[in-house]
Amino acid sequence: MRIALLGGTGNIGEGLALRWAPKHDVVIGSRSAEKADEAATSCEERLFEEGTSCELAGEENVQAIADCDVVVLALQYQYAMPTAVAIKDKLNSNAIVVSPVVPMIKDGFLRYEPSKKYGSAALEIQNILSDNEVVSAFHTMPAARLIDLKDKLGLDVLVCGSEKPKQIVMGLVKDIEGLTAFDAGPLEASFMVESITPLLINVSARNRLKNSSIRIIGQSIK
Amino acid sequence: MRIALLGGTGNIGEGLALRWAPKHDVVIGSRSAEKADEAATSCEERLFEEGTSCELAGEENVQAIADCDVVVLALQYQYAMPTAVAIKDKLNSNAIVVSPVVPMIKDGFLRYEPSKKYGSAALEIQNILSDNEVVSAFHTMPAARLIDLKDKLGLDVLVCGSEKPKQIVMGLVKDIEGLTAFDAGPLEASFMVESITPLLINVSARNRLKNSSIRIIGQSIK
Repeated sequence: MRIALLGGTGNIGEGLALRWAPKHDVVIGSRSAEKADEAATSCEERLFEEGTSCELAGEENVQAIADCDVVVLALQYQYAMPTAVAIKDKLNSNAIVVSPVVPMIKDGFLRYEPSKKYGSAALEIQNILSDNEVVSAFHTMPAARLIDLKDKLGLDVLVCGSEKPKQIVMGLVKDIEGLTAFDAGPLEASFMVESITPLLINVSARNRLKNSSIRIIGQSIK
Repeated sequence: MRIALLGGTGNIGEGLALRWAPKHDVVIGSRSAEKADEAATSCEERLFEEGTSCELAGEENVQAIADCDVVVLALQYQYAMPTAVAIKDKLNSNAIVVSPVVPMIKDGFLRYEPSKKYGSAALEIQNILSDNEVVSAFHTMPAARLIDLKDKLGLDVLVCGSEKPKQIVMGLVKDIEGLTAFDAGPLEASFMVESITPLLINVSARNRLKNSSIRIIGQSIK
Protein backbone atom coordinates (compact mmCIF):
# COMPACT_ATOMS: atom_id res chain seq x y z
CA MET A 1 0.00 0.00 0.00
CA ARG A 2 1.10 3.59 -0.60
CA ILE A 3 0.93 5.57 2.66
CA ALA A 4 1.52 9.30 3.09
CA LEU A 5 2.47 10.47 6.57
CA LEU A 6 1.75 14.20 6.78
CA GLY A 7 3.71 15.49 9.72
CA GLY A 8 6.07 12.59 9.17
CA THR A 9 9.05 14.67 10.25
CA GLY A 10 8.20 14.28 13.92
CA ASN A 11 6.25 12.50 16.60
CA ILE A 12 4.20 9.47 15.69
CA GLY A 13 4.41 10.29 11.96
CA GLU A 14 8.10 9.46 11.99
CA GLY A 15 7.51 6.37 14.11
CA LEU A 16 4.84 5.05 11.74
CA ALA A 17 7.12 5.78 8.76
CA LEU A 18 9.89 3.68 10.32
CA ARG A 19 7.58 0.83 11.26
CA TRP A 20 5.67 0.66 7.96
CA ALA A 21 8.53 1.30 5.49
CA PRO A 22 9.68 -2.35 5.31
CA LYS A 23 6.19 -3.45 4.18
CA HIS A 24 4.66 -0.46 2.41
CA ASP A 25 5.49 2.47 0.10
CA VAL A 26 5.92 5.28 2.57
CA VAL A 27 5.93 8.98 1.65
CA ILE A 28 6.79 11.49 4.34
CA GLY A 29 4.93 14.79 3.94
CA SER A 30 5.83 18.15 5.43
CA ARG A 31 5.13 21.82 4.77
CA SER A 32 8.74 21.93 3.58
CA ALA A 33 9.79 19.52 0.81
CA GLU A 34 13.39 19.82 2.03
CA LYS A 35 12.53 18.79 5.59
CA ALA A 36 10.43 15.91 4.25
CA ASP A 37 13.31 14.69 2.12
CA GLU A 38 15.75 14.92 5.04
CA ALA A 39 13.34 12.96 7.25
CA ALA A 40 12.96 10.26 4.58
CA THR A 41 16.74 9.91 4.29
CA SER A 42 17.14 9.81 8.06
CA CYS A 43 14.52 7.04 8.29
CA GLU A 44 16.33 5.03 5.60
CA GLU A 45 19.59 5.36 7.54
CA ARG A 46 18.04 4.28 10.82
CA LEU A 47 16.36 1.28 9.20
CA PHE A 48 19.66 0.38 7.53
CA GLU A 49 21.37 0.44 10.96
CA GLU A 50 18.78 -2.12 12.06
CA GLY A 51 19.58 -4.28 9.03
CA THR A 52 16.61 -3.24 6.90
CA SER A 53 17.14 -1.72 3.49
CA CYS A 54 14.19 0.23 2.09
CA GLU A 55 13.39 3.50 0.36
CA LEU A 56 11.16 6.27 1.62
CA ALA A 57 10.06 9.35 -0.29
CA GLY A 58 9.80 12.87 1.09
CA GLU A 59 7.54 15.54 -0.44
CA GLU A 60 5.65 18.70 0.36
CA ASN A 61 2.26 17.69 1.86
CA VAL A 62 0.10 18.23 -1.24
CA GLN A 63 2.61 16.32 -3.44
CA ALA A 64 3.01 13.58 -0.85
CA ILE A 65 -0.61 12.46 -1.05
CA ALA A 66 -0.59 11.79 -4.81
CA ASP A 67 -1.82 8.26 -5.58
CA CYS A 68 -1.86 7.31 -1.91
CA ASP A 69 -4.18 4.62 -0.53
CA VAL A 70 -3.85 5.91 3.02
CA VAL A 71 -3.05 9.40 4.31
CA VAL A 72 -2.21 9.86 7.99
CA LEU A 73 -2.67 13.35 9.45
CA ALA A 74 0.09 13.00 12.05
CA LEU A 75 -0.24 16.63 13.06
CA GLN A 76 -1.25 18.71 16.04
CA TYR A 77 -4.87 19.80 15.96
CA GLN A 78 -4.15 23.40 14.93
CA TYR A 79 -2.12 22.22 11.89
CA ALA A 80 -4.30 19.23 11.03
CA MET A 81 -7.38 21.27 10.11
CA PRO A 82 -5.72 23.68 7.60
CA THR A 83 -3.77 20.72 6.15
CA ALA A 84 -7.05 18.81 5.64
CA VAL A 85 -8.45 21.84 3.80
CA ALA A 86 -5.26 22.12 1.69
CA ILE A 87 -5.29 18.50 0.53
CA LYS A 88 -9.07 18.16 0.01
CA ASP A 89 -9.11 18.57 -3.79
CA LYS A 90 -5.94 16.56 -4.34
CA LEU A 91 -6.86 13.39 -2.46
CA ASN A 92 -7.53 10.15 -4.27
CA SER A 93 -11.28 9.61 -4.01
CA ASN A 94 -10.76 6.21 -2.37
CA ALA A 95 -7.87 7.25 -0.10
CA ILE A 96 -8.51 6.51 3.56
CA VAL A 97 -7.61 9.37 5.89
CA VAL A 98 -6.28 8.33 9.30
CA SER A 99 -6.66 10.77 12.20
CA PRO A 100 -4.59 10.43 15.37
CA VAL A 101 -5.46 14.10 16.03
CA VAL A 102 -6.41 15.23 19.55
CA PRO A 103 -7.67 18.73 20.37
CA MET A 104 -6.54 19.65 23.88
CA ILE A 105 -5.89 22.74 25.95
CA LYS A 106 -4.02 23.52 29.14
CA ASP A 107 -6.31 24.37 32.00
CA GLY A 108 -4.17 23.64 35.07
CA PHE A 109 -4.31 20.10 33.73
CA LEU A 110 -4.57 19.03 30.09
CA ARG A 111 -8.20 18.99 29.00
CA TYR A 112 -9.71 17.28 25.95
CA GLU A 113 -11.50 20.07 24.08
CA PRO A 114 -12.97 19.22 20.68
CA SER A 115 -14.98 21.74 18.67
CA LYS A 116 -18.48 21.95 20.14
CA LYS A 117 -19.97 21.63 16.67
CA TYR A 118 -18.33 18.32 15.73
CA GLY A 119 -17.52 16.79 19.11
CA SER A 120 -14.23 15.21 18.02
CA ALA A 121 -11.25 15.89 15.77
CA ALA A 122 -12.17 12.85 13.67
CA LEU A 123 -15.68 14.14 12.90
CA GLU A 124 -14.33 17.63 12.19
CA ILE A 125 -11.85 16.19 9.68
CA GLN A 126 -14.57 13.98 8.19
CA ASN A 127 -16.66 17.11 7.68
CA ILE A 128 -13.81 18.78 5.76
CA LEU A 129 -12.85 15.68 3.77
CA SER A 130 -16.43 14.70 3.05
CA ASP A 131 -15.56 12.74 -0.13
CA ASN A 132 -13.19 10.41 1.74
CA GLU A 133 -13.51 7.97 4.62
CA VAL A 134 -11.84 9.04 7.86
CA VAL A 135 -10.68 6.45 10.40
CA SER A 136 -9.32 7.48 13.80
CA ALA A 137 -6.43 5.55 15.38
CA PHE A 138 -3.03 5.77 17.12
CA HIS A 139 -4.09 8.39 19.72
CA THR A 140 -2.56 6.54 22.66
CA MET A 141 0.72 5.64 20.95
CA PRO A 142 3.78 7.20 22.63
CA ALA A 143 5.89 8.65 19.80
CA ALA A 144 9.16 8.04 21.63
CA ARG A 145 8.43 4.32 21.85
CA LEU A 146 7.30 4.00 18.22
CA ILE A 147 10.46 5.77 16.98
CA ASP A 148 12.76 3.48 18.95
CA LEU A 149 13.05 0.47 16.66
CA LYS A 150 14.49 -1.66 19.47
CA ASP A 151 11.25 -1.16 21.46
CA LYS A 152 9.02 -4.22 21.12
CA LEU A 153 5.94 -2.10 21.98
CA GLY A 154 3.29 -4.48 23.34
CA LEU A 155 0.59 -1.80 23.06
CA ASP A 156 -3.01 -1.54 21.91
CA VAL A 157 -4.54 0.70 19.27
CA LEU A 158 -8.23 1.67 19.44
CA VAL A 159 -9.69 2.25 15.97
CA CYS A 160 -12.96 4.05 15.09
CA GLY A 161 -14.63 4.38 11.70
CA SER A 162 -16.91 2.78 9.12
CA GLU A 163 -16.48 -0.97 8.83
CA LYS A 164 -14.59 -1.30 5.54
CA PRO A 165 -11.91 1.40 5.92
CA LYS A 166 -11.60 0.51 9.62
CA GLN A 167 -10.68 -3.08 8.73
CA ILE A 168 -7.97 -1.79 6.39
CA VAL A 169 -6.51 0.46 9.09
CA MET A 170 -6.71 -2.39 11.64
CA GLY A 171 -4.71 -4.44 9.13
CA LEU A 172 -2.08 -1.68 9.02
CA VAL A 173 -1.93 -1.71 12.83
CA LYS A 174 -1.29 -5.46 12.75
CA ASP A 175 1.53 -4.88 10.22
CA ILE A 176 3.45 -3.33 13.09
CA GLU A 177 4.80 -6.06 15.35
CA GLY A 178 3.87 -5.52 18.97
CA LEU A 179 0.65 -3.60 18.28
CA THR A 180 -2.84 -5.05 18.68
CA ALA A 181 -5.84 -3.38 17.03
CA PHE A 182 -9.24 -3.10 18.73
CA ASP A 183 -12.44 -2.03 17.01
CA ALA A 184 -13.72 0.85 19.17
CA GLY A 185 -16.86 1.60 17.16
CA PRO A 186 -17.95 4.09 14.52
CA LEU A 187 -16.26 7.46 13.95
CA GLU A 188 -18.89 9.03 16.22
CA ALA A 189 -17.27 7.12 19.12
CA SER A 190 -13.85 8.68 18.44
CA PHE A 191 -14.21 11.35 21.17
CA MET A 192 -13.98 8.61 23.82
CA VAL A 193 -10.64 7.47 22.38
CA GLU A 194 -9.23 10.92 21.66
CA SER A 195 -9.83 12.03 25.25
CA ILE A 196 -7.50 9.31 26.54
CA THR A 197 -4.47 11.23 25.19
CA PRO A 198 -4.65 14.26 27.53
CA LEU A 199 -5.67 11.89 30.34
CA LEU A 200 -2.48 9.87 29.80
CA ILE A 201 -0.35 13.02 29.72
CA ASN A 202 -1.90 14.08 33.06
CA VAL A 203 -1.35 10.60 34.51
CA SER A 204 2.31 10.67 33.39
CA ALA A 205 2.91 14.09 34.94
CA ARG A 206 1.25 13.17 38.26
CA ASN A 207 2.66 9.68 38.75
CA ARG A 208 6.31 10.10 37.72
CA LEU A 209 5.84 8.24 34.46
CA LYS A 210 6.72 8.93 30.84
CA ASN A 211 5.46 7.61 27.51
CA SER A 212 2.25 6.36 29.12
CA SER A 213 -0.15 4.33 27.06
CA ILE A 214 -2.94 1.87 27.74
CA ARG A 215 -3.57 -1.81 27.28
CA ILE A 216 -7.01 -3.34 27.05
CA ILE A 217 -7.38 -6.13 29.61
CA GLY A 218 -10.32 -8.31 28.59
CA GLN A 219 -11.38 -11.93 28.85
CA SER A 220 -11.97 -13.71 25.53
CA ILE A 221 -15.45 -14.97 24.69
CA LYS A 222 -15.13 -18.26 22.85
CA MET B 1 -12.42 3.49 58.26
CA ARG B 2 -16.20 3.34 58.10
CA ILE B 3 -17.32 3.00 54.46
CA ALA B 4 -20.91 3.04 53.16
CA LEU B 5 -21.50 1.42 49.79
CA LEU B 6 -24.77 2.78 48.42
CA GLY B 7 -25.87 0.37 45.73
CA GLY B 8 -23.86 -2.27 47.56
CA THR B 9 -26.36 -4.95 46.60
CA GLY B 10 -24.98 -5.25 43.08
CA ASN B 11 -22.22 -4.48 40.62
CA ILE B 12 -19.04 -2.89 41.88
CA GLY B 13 -20.69 -1.92 45.20
CA GLU B 14 -20.83 -5.58 46.20
CA GLY B 15 -17.31 -6.19 44.90
CA LEU B 16 -15.89 -3.29 46.92
CA ALA B 17 -17.80 -4.49 50.02
CA LEU B 18 -16.20 -7.92 49.71
CA ARG B 19 -12.70 -6.56 49.11
CA TRP B 20 -12.78 -3.91 51.85
CA ALA B 21 -14.65 -5.79 54.59
CA PRO B 22 -11.52 -7.53 55.99
CA LYS B 23 -9.83 -4.14 56.60
CA HIS B 24 -12.66 -1.63 57.13
CA ASP B 25 -16.12 -1.22 58.70
CA VAL B 26 -18.36 -1.76 55.70
CA VAL B 27 -22.04 -0.80 55.56
CA ILE B 28 -24.04 -1.84 52.53
CA GLY B 29 -26.78 0.64 51.61
CA SER B 30 -29.84 0.05 49.48
CA ARG B 31 -33.26 1.63 48.95
CA SER B 32 -34.56 -1.44 50.82
CA ALA B 33 -33.16 -2.14 54.30
CA GLU B 34 -34.10 -5.81 53.86
CA LYS B 35 -32.14 -6.17 50.61
CA ALA B 36 -29.18 -4.39 52.19
CA ASP B 37 -29.22 -6.75 55.15
CA GLU B 38 -29.44 -9.81 52.88
CA ALA B 39 -26.49 -8.53 50.82
CA ALA B 40 -24.43 -7.97 53.97
CA THR B 41 -25.14 -11.53 55.18
CA SER B 42 -24.33 -12.95 51.75
CA CYS B 43 -21.00 -11.08 51.70
CA GLU B 44 -20.16 -12.42 55.18
CA GLU B 45 -20.86 -15.97 53.97
CA ARG B 46 -18.74 -15.63 50.86
CA LEU B 47 -15.84 -14.17 52.81
CA PHE B 48 -16.18 -17.01 55.35
CA GLU B 49 -15.93 -19.55 52.49
CA GLU B 50 -12.62 -17.90 51.59
CA GLY B 51 -11.45 -18.23 55.19
CA THR B 52 -12.14 -14.65 56.28
CA SER B 53 -14.44 -13.93 59.18
CA CYS B 54 -15.82 -10.39 59.32
CA GLU B 55 -19.05 -8.53 59.86
CA LEU B 56 -20.84 -6.22 57.45
CA ALA B 57 -23.88 -4.08 58.19
CA GLY B 58 -26.83 -3.53 55.87
CA GLU B 59 -29.09 -0.46 56.06
CA GLU B 60 -31.40 1.71 54.03
CA ASN B 61 -29.24 4.31 52.19
CA VAL B 62 -29.88 7.29 54.49
CA GLN B 63 -29.20 5.15 57.61
CA ALA B 64 -26.15 3.54 56.01
CA ILE B 65 -24.21 6.79 55.72
CA ALA B 66 -24.41 7.65 59.44
CA ASP B 67 -20.93 8.34 60.85
CA CYS B 68 -19.24 7.19 57.64
CA ASP B 69 -15.81 8.47 56.61
CA VAL B 70 -16.34 7.46 53.00
CA VAL B 71 -19.56 7.03 51.02
CA VAL B 72 -19.43 5.32 47.61
CA LEU B 73 -22.28 6.04 45.18
CA ALA B 74 -22.11 2.65 43.44
CA LEU B 75 -25.23 3.40 41.43
CA GLN B 76 -26.27 3.94 37.87
CA TYR B 77 -26.39 7.58 36.85
CA GLN B 78 -30.20 7.89 37.01
CA TYR B 79 -30.26 6.59 40.61
CA ALA B 80 -27.06 8.29 41.76
CA MET B 81 -28.39 11.84 41.41
CA PRO B 82 -31.62 11.42 43.47
CA THR B 83 -29.64 9.42 46.04
CA ALA B 84 -27.11 12.26 46.34
CA VAL B 85 -30.01 14.67 46.94
CA ALA B 86 -31.54 12.30 49.52
CA ILE B 87 -28.36 11.93 51.60
CA LYS B 88 -27.20 15.58 51.36
CA ASP B 89 -28.39 16.73 54.80
CA LYS B 90 -27.41 13.50 56.58
CA LEU B 91 -23.80 13.24 55.45
CA ASN B 92 -20.95 13.74 57.89
CA SER B 93 -19.43 17.10 56.99
CA ASN B 94 -16.02 15.48 56.49
CA ALA B 95 -17.24 12.36 54.71
CA ILE B 96 -15.60 11.81 51.33
CA VAL B 97 -18.03 10.88 48.56
CA VAL B 98 -16.65 8.50 45.92
CA SER B 99 -18.24 8.55 42.46
CA PRO B 100 -17.77 5.67 40.02
CA VAL B 101 -20.87 7.03 38.23
CA VAL B 102 -20.91 7.18 34.42
CA PRO B 103 -23.72 8.84 32.41
CA MET B 104 -24.12 6.99 29.12
CA ILE B 105 -26.77 6.43 26.47
CA LYS B 106 -27.28 3.94 23.67
CA ASP B 107 -26.89 5.49 20.25
CA GLY B 108 -26.11 2.47 18.05
CA PHE B 109 -23.01 2.29 20.23
CA LEU B 110 -22.71 3.31 23.88
CA ARG B 111 -21.98 7.03 24.13
CA TYR B 112 -20.63 8.95 27.14
CA GLU B 113 -23.18 11.67 27.74
CA PRO B 114 -22.76 13.82 30.86
CA SER B 115 -25.05 16.75 31.62
CA LYS B 116 -24.02 19.70 29.43
CA LYS B 117 -24.09 21.98 32.46
CA TYR B 118 -21.59 20.05 34.59
CA GLY B 119 -19.64 18.07 32.01
CA SER B 120 -19.23 14.95 34.17
CA ALA B 121 -21.11 12.89 36.74
CA ALA B 122 -18.47 13.74 39.33
CA LEU B 123 -18.94 17.49 38.94
CA GLU B 124 -22.73 17.10 38.96
CA ILE B 125 -22.55 15.16 42.24
CA GLN B 126 -20.08 17.71 43.64
CA ASN B 127 -22.61 20.43 42.81
CA ILE B 128 -25.33 18.60 44.78
CA LEU B 129 -23.08 17.63 47.69
CA SER B 130 -21.38 21.01 47.87
CA ASP B 131 -20.44 20.67 51.57
CA ASN B 132 -18.46 17.47 50.98
CA GLU B 133 -15.47 16.51 48.87
CA VAL B 134 -16.21 14.27 45.90
CA VAL B 135 -13.52 11.98 44.46
CA SER B 136 -14.09 9.98 41.29
CA ALA B 137 -12.70 6.44 40.95
CA PHE B 138 -13.39 2.81 39.97
CA HIS B 139 -15.04 3.61 36.60
CA THR B 140 -13.06 1.02 34.68
CA MET B 141 -13.43 -1.78 37.22
CA PRO B 142 -15.31 -4.82 35.88
CA ALA B 143 -17.83 -5.77 38.61
CA ALA B 144 -17.69 -9.48 37.76
CA ARG B 145 -13.96 -9.56 38.42
CA LEU B 146 -14.15 -7.57 41.66
CA ILE B 147 -16.89 -9.86 43.01
CA ASP B 148 -14.90 -13.02 42.28
CA LEU B 149 -12.62 -13.26 45.33
CA LYS B 150 -10.38 -15.79 43.58
CA ASP B 151 -9.61 -13.20 40.87
CA LYS B 152 -6.22 -11.60 41.56
CA LEU B 153 -7.24 -8.52 39.50
CA GLY B 154 -4.03 -6.83 38.31
CA LEU B 155 -5.92 -3.71 37.26
CA ASP B 156 -5.48 0.04 37.49
CA VAL B 157 -7.77 2.65 39.03
CA LEU B 158 -7.69 6.26 37.82
CA VAL B 159 -8.61 8.70 40.59
CA CYS B 160 -9.66 12.37 40.22
CA GLY B 161 -10.28 14.93 42.96
CA SER B 162 -8.74 17.48 45.32
CA GLU B 163 -5.38 16.43 46.70
CA LYS B 164 -6.27 15.48 50.29
CA PRO B 165 -9.41 13.38 49.77
CA LYS B 166 -7.85 11.89 46.62
CA GLN B 167 -4.88 10.59 48.63
CA ILE B 168 -7.31 8.92 51.06
CA VAL B 169 -9.21 7.24 48.21
CA MET B 170 -5.94 6.18 46.55
CA GLY B 171 -5.06 4.58 49.90
CA LEU B 172 -8.36 2.68 49.82
CA VAL B 173 -7.55 1.48 46.28
CA LYS B 174 -4.19 0.18 47.52
CA ASP B 175 -6.00 -1.67 50.34
CA ILE B 176 -7.35 -3.98 47.63
CA GLU B 177 -4.65 -6.39 46.55
CA GLY B 178 -4.15 -6.41 42.80
CA LEU B 179 -5.26 -2.81 42.24
CA THR B 180 -2.91 0.09 41.51
CA ALA B 181 -4.07 3.69 41.96
CA PHE B 182 -3.09 6.48 39.56
CA ASP B 183 -3.66 10.17 40.19
CA ALA B 184 -5.57 11.36 37.10
CA GLY B 185 -5.92 15.01 38.11
CA PRO B 186 -8.54 17.25 39.68
CA LEU B 187 -12.27 16.47 39.67
CA GLU B 188 -12.58 18.63 36.53
CA ALA B 189 -10.58 15.94 34.69
CA SER B 190 -13.07 13.22 35.63
CA PHE B 191 -14.91 13.33 32.28
CA MET B 192 -11.83 11.86 30.57
CA VAL B 193 -11.91 8.89 32.96
CA GLU B 194 -15.69 8.42 33.00
CA SER B 195 -15.82 8.23 29.20
CA ILE B 196 -13.56 5.16 29.23
CA THR B 197 -16.44 3.04 30.62
CA PRO B 198 -18.75 3.16 27.57
CA LEU B 199 -15.66 2.90 25.35
CA LEU B 200 -14.68 -0.36 27.09
CA ILE B 201 -18.21 -1.74 26.75
CA ASN B 202 -18.10 -0.97 23.02
CA VAL B 203 -14.65 -2.56 22.72
CA SER B 204 -15.89 -5.69 24.54
CA ALA B 205 -18.94 -6.02 22.27
CA ARG B 206 -16.94 -5.56 19.05
CA ASN B 207 -13.89 -7.69 19.85
CA ARG B 208 -15.44 -10.76 21.49
CA LEU B 209 -14.28 -9.79 24.96
CA LYS B 210 -15.95 -9.51 28.34
CA ASN B 211 -15.09 -7.67 31.56
CA SER B 212 -12.74 -5.32 29.71
CA SER B 213 -10.65 -2.91 31.66
CA ILE B 214 -7.47 -0.93 31.11
CA ARG B 215 -3.95 -0.92 32.40
CA ILE B 216 -1.65 2.06 32.29
CA ILE B 217 1.63 1.17 30.58
CA GLY B 218 4.20 3.79 31.50
CA GLN B 219 7.95 4.02 32.02
CA SER B 220 9.07 5.14 35.49
CA ILE B 221 10.96 8.39 35.86
CA LYS B 222 13.59 7.94 38.53
